[in-house]
Amino acid sequence: MFCWLSRLCGELSTPTRRTTQLIWSSAARSMVLSSQRIPELSSFVARTNTCGELRSSHLGQEVTLCGWIQFRRQNIFLVLRDFHGLVQVVIPQDESAASVKKILCEAPMESVVQVSGTVISRPPGQKNPKMPTGEIEIKVKTAKLLNSCKKLPFEIKDFMKKTETLRLQYRYLDLRSVQMQYNLRLRSQMVMKMREYLCNLHGFVDVETPTLFKRTPGGAKEFVIPSREPGKFYSLPQSPQQFKQLLMVGGLDRYFQVARCYRDEGSRPDRQPEFTQIDIEMSFVDQTGVQSLIEGLLQYSWPSDKDPLVVPFPSMPFAEALASYGTDKPDTRFGMKIVDISDMFRNTEVGFLQDALSKPQGTVKAICIRKGAKYLKRKDIESIRKFAADHFNECSLMGKLRLECADLLEARGVVLRDPALFSFLWVVDFPLFLPKEENPQELESAHHPFTAPHPSDIHLLYTEPHKVRSQHYDLVLNGNEIGGGSIRIHNSELQHYVLDTVLKEDVKLLSHLLQALDYGAPPHGGIALGKQSILF
Amino acid sequence: MFCWLSRLCGELSTPTRRTTQLIWSSAARSMVLSSQRIPELSSFVARTNTCGELRSSHLGQEVTLCGWIQFRRQNIFLVLRDFHGLVQVVIPQDESAASVKKILCEAPMESVVQVSGTVISRPPGQKNPKMPTGEIEIKVKTAKLLNSCKKLPFEIKDFMKKTETLRLQYRYLDLRSVQMQYNLRLRSQMVMKMREYLCNLHGFVDVETPTLFKRTPGGAKEFVIPSREPGKFYSLPQSPQQFKQLLMVGGLDRYFQVARCYRDEGSRPDRQPEFTQIDIEMSFVDQTGVQSLIEGLLQYSWPSDKDPLVVPFPSMPFAEALASYGTDKPDTRFGMKIVDISDMFRNTEVGFLQDALSKPQGTVKAICIRKGAKYLKRKDIESIRKFAADHFNECSLMGKLRLECADLLEARGVVLRDPALFSFLWVVDFPLFLPKEENPQELESAHHPFTAPHPSDIHLLYTEPHKVRSQHYDLVLNGNEIGGGSIRIHNSELQHYVLDTVLKEDVKLLSHLLQALDYGAPPHGGIALGKQSILF
Repeated sequence: MFCWLSRLCGELSTPTRRTTQLIWSSAARSMVLSSQRIPELSSFVARTNTCGELRSSHLGQEVTLCGWIQFRRQNIFLVLRDFHGLVQVVIPQDESAASVKKILCEAPMESVVQVSGTVISRPPGQKNPKMPTGEIEIKVKTAKLLNSCKKLPFEIKDFMKKTETLRLQYRYLDLRSVQMQYNLRLRSQMVMKMREYLCNLHGFVDVETPTLFKRTPGGAKEFVIPSREPGKFYSLPQSPQQFKQLLMVGGLDRYFQVARCYRDEGSRPDRQPEFTQIDIEMSFVDQTGVQSLIEGLLQYSWPSDKDPLVVPFPSMPFAEALASYGTDKPDTRFGMKIVDISDMFRNTEVGFLQDALSKPQGTVKAICIRKGAKYLKRKDIESIRKFAADHFNECSLMGKLRLECADLLEARGVVLRDPALFSFLWVVDFPLFLPKEENPQELESAHHPFTAPHPSDIHLLYTEPHKVRSQHYDLVLNGNEIGGGSIRIHNSELQHYVLDTVLKEDVKLLSHLLQALDYGAPPHGGIALGKQSILF
Repeated sequence: MFCWLSRLCGELSTPTRRTTQLIWSSAARSMVLSSQRIPELSSFVARTNTCGELRSSHLGQEVTLCGWIQFRRQNIFLVLRDFHGLVQVVIPQDESAASVKKILCEAPMESVVQVSGTVISRPPGQKNPKMPTGEIEIKVKTAKLLNSCKKLPFEIKDFMKKTETLRLQYRYLDLRSVQMQYNLRLRSQMVMKMREYLCNLHGFVDVETPTLFKRTPGGAKEFVIPSREPGKFYSLPQSPQQFKQLLMVGGLDRYFQVARCYRDEGSRPDRQPEFTQIDIEMSFVDQTGVQSLIEGLLQYSWPSDKDPLVVPFPSMPFAEALASYGTDKPDTRFGMKIVDISDMFRNTEVGFLQDALSKPQGTVKAICIRKGAKYLKRKDIESIRKFAADHFNECSLMGKLRLECADLLEARGVVLRDPALFSFLWVVDFPLFLPKEENPQELESAHHPFTAPHPSDIHLLYTEPHKVRSQHYDLVLNGNEIGGGSIRIHNSELQHYVLDTVLKEDVKLLSHLLQALDYGAPPHGGIALGKQSILF
């Protein structure tokens, strides 16, 4: 089994051009910005201040600090670190302070110490403008060694490169880095802002639903837990879908939960067996209502050190996404759309094009790579040709080819996908059903069996169900699906028809839900943000 | 396996004298009071207002309401309900509105309808001062049946008594009651206030720790989950104890989590297999610091419709709790303390008292039941006698007897334990180790092996470990343990000595923690609130 330490926080850092520029105080600064009231960071504990907060305005104050020894210079200076930042401590040199000097000079790096002293100004010429606390230093009176540190497997310095294996094995040491402190604090603050928006601004109720559940038909493979009754098992739920629909039937009206979900799908680089989603459900809502809620939610909780989000987000029908981007999660940070140029070649004499067009639904499609001739080299063209040949029988070929070309262009120095850009997109009008892979004569739910049909297509449900569009919507960010939801079926007979006649499911497994819909279920819909595919 | 519906919200209501006085608007009122900004309850949805919010100040407004049909009178009036309250709708009687009349008169009770119309004043003499919306009614223009309701297994009226089995089977119908809506909303709001206090006021970081974990030595029985590797299992954690200690080593400094925990202990009336605790850990803190934090936390999040909490809470050493109340979780709402009266009987000639006092550690103890002679009947005295005889060999006899006597007095009409009183108490100075039940020569942890010894007793650890008190503290409310925590061991050698020499545990199982303590672990401590024994 993999090392459990590796899962302490659920994500490794993914440094980008922007985040690597962070300095120590960033983690704390973003914490302060996200809340109107500046939190007290030293209440209830042995320190009077954090290391990172001291400035010229603290000059003359008697302070007590607790932190890790980051650095020592010539037994004269010591740099003390906490989550908030670094501060310089002057080691006393006079005879009377020999015991303090001994503690501070002998403690190994990364030992934990407590020092008390006075905030003084650094002598002229010794100020450090690159360090937020660079105008001051601490004249120490007393010092206490709180814990000594043995030799570390790697240094806690951001410029030191460590292997991922080592970072995961000593996760608690990796967490001391600026980047990891920033990641964990930012996540905590964003989720807190989301809660404020949902609870305090819009009256949503946070309800915790059980995780020891029974099997859900269809969907991903579930983890099972043996119960005390032989032969009986609990299942860990893939999502609180059924619970939240029942809460709507129970009149809860506006529900949300930061919900732990589980899928037993083995390990893939972008998947985790347990993950968290912001799970939302509302009564008396339509698709536009849910979309507006989410736009407001993201706008409200967006980190204040980034450009504010512009809403509403653009929307694109599934069919258009497939035609223009070759995928249902288009990266709209750049163009290079797929264009159907079949008509130009109707009368062509080029053999392979004639061939393609003579086939049923045969088309000729193109992607225009602007400045391709300037930037792409012969071996790039060759690799595109090979990529196309390797993936020729996949419907999503053109979508993959578009991303492949983007990779090649960026490798040659063209900036297509600005990492500072957040390009949100709603993808809508999905088909309600898809042909089963193993047996295309039968249909399966494109998402899940509780999704409501599109009101304009409801008549087709009984005649041509494969043509019915759904009221499902996906939220896509820079080519990743970061959320999805739908208006649900609230009519028991319709739900029964979909399960029984269209999907040929055993309705008994969901009889509790069908019965609930019979007892005054309100129309309702919802969404889940931060799904498994994203390390939320 | 038990019905999963029963676990939808984790708790049944426990109506008290106070809560049964609730009216429909209470749930909504408490929601408004708990937040400075009044939440928008009708944003993003098909209604303009909630049923329960309409007052004379809305007169003349055109409104759209969605709700459940609670009541219909003579096909003239209809009472519509949502989570916020009730409102009276006037069914139009004129020919031109025949279709509206038909919808509103034919829909079964608990059907879901949408009505649009004007807020008008009720005619003189028809106002209902007992109903928050009793001054107004809705003159309907249009109506839509959103969902029809089949005949229910029980009526959604609070005065209707239902069996617990029926309530659990149709949990979603039970949730429509005033009491359950109040419970769920109050819980959501209190937890939100706690988050505000921790995150926004005191800079705590909300970190989600994994629940697919490895086995923890000792403690309760854990649920196991088969992994994809034959013979290997995950465990669901009893608490995030190890994770939060590692976060402290990682410099996270102030951590909290509303954490799901699991214990496979079978079902008991006051225990659940999965439960939630407010899990907190801080670096550089002592016992007083954690206690002050929790007092502030509870004071801040306390429901505004109750008397404010007075802090600090009183504190009582474990030994005193045992001597005066016969339990480590005393109900301090009433006196009737246990008194040692051995000295009065040193020279007694009463045989059974002589007997008792002649035994090693033999004592004579008494509880004074004030006005007992007036209220207790002969058969009450007899039942006390029998209770004492039945439990004679249990050390906790006197504590149980005290509660038994309180029950008897209250059955005779004496109010000893005011249900409106919240009597918080810290119990401190627990022993660090206890003799093992099966082998009293060996010691086991009184709480868990990470608990730090009391600083005054640390010298005894190597000579008389059974005499060492710990830095553990329990929070007790009205005789229930609602939280517990401790200052932890942060020194690797001390932790190794406790695990290996005192407890004879296999240190290999916790080698990762011992190693982490070697790498600059700060002094730290914490607490968990709302433990398994309470339906939090």
